[in-house]
Amino acid sequence: MKFLLLVAHGSRRSESNTEVEQVAARLAEAAASEYDGVLHAFLELAEPSIPDGIDACLAGGADEVTVLPYFLAAGRHVSEDIPEIVAAKQAEYPDRVIRIAPYLGTAGELPELLLNLSR
Amino acid sequence: MKFLLLVAHGSRRSESNTEVEQVAARLAEAAASEYDGVLHAFLELAEPSIPDGIDACLAGGADEVTVLPYFLAAGRHVSEDIPEIVAAKQAEYPDRVIRIAPYLGTAGELPELLLNLSR
Repeated sequence: MKFLLLVAHGSRRSESNTEVEQVAARLAEAAASEYDGVLHAFLELAEPSIPDGIDACLAGGADEVTVLPYFLAAGRHVSEDIPEIVAAKQAEYPDRVIRIAPYLGTAGELPELLLNLSR
Repeated sequence: MKFLLLVAHGSRRSESNTEVEQVAARLAEAAASEYDGVLHAFLELAEPSIPDGIDACLAGGADEVTVLPYFLAAGRHVSEDIPEIVAAKQAEYPDRVIRIAPYLGTAGELPELLLNLSR
């Protein structure tokens, strides 16, 4: 079973975290034919944490978890923090696959999406 | 003449600001048939500032400037700071139109874009 885990930074502002939940819910609909489950997690300032989110995917039966960073730039969070957390969880579950997808800011469709927003 | 101004938060990490510049450059290509110019600006921590970015659009001959917030959530920056800056600049130039487009996090195509990234 394949699970997708949308990972955002997390905010002290609960409405911002709710926006992430809503994007994850819409992603779950879009991904229904490809993934057995879509969950979300936060790096900091909000729950669930990334380790808890990965655990929830594994508890749901995931053989493969794809961690998708909902970040616009490759700062320390994307380049170090998330990979370290994922590596630790991968070491804990060597018989599962936990991979990291490219972060949002690298998406080739961003310019077209932004242009649509401007209209 | 219509100009588009991509507005990001800005980072102490120069590579993150460079990523914004690169997105703006790709946006300029995508928007070439609809906008006479595409520039970028930062709310804080990096240059050019939003007022300077708007001024650059106006100096370029813009009658209409569309400010596009490159933000994922509607925090204080999106809901208060950017509108205040734009309102002040609009008051300074009442014969031009300075409008704010919906922020990135509201884009309806985000779920499909994220799904593509996960593949």
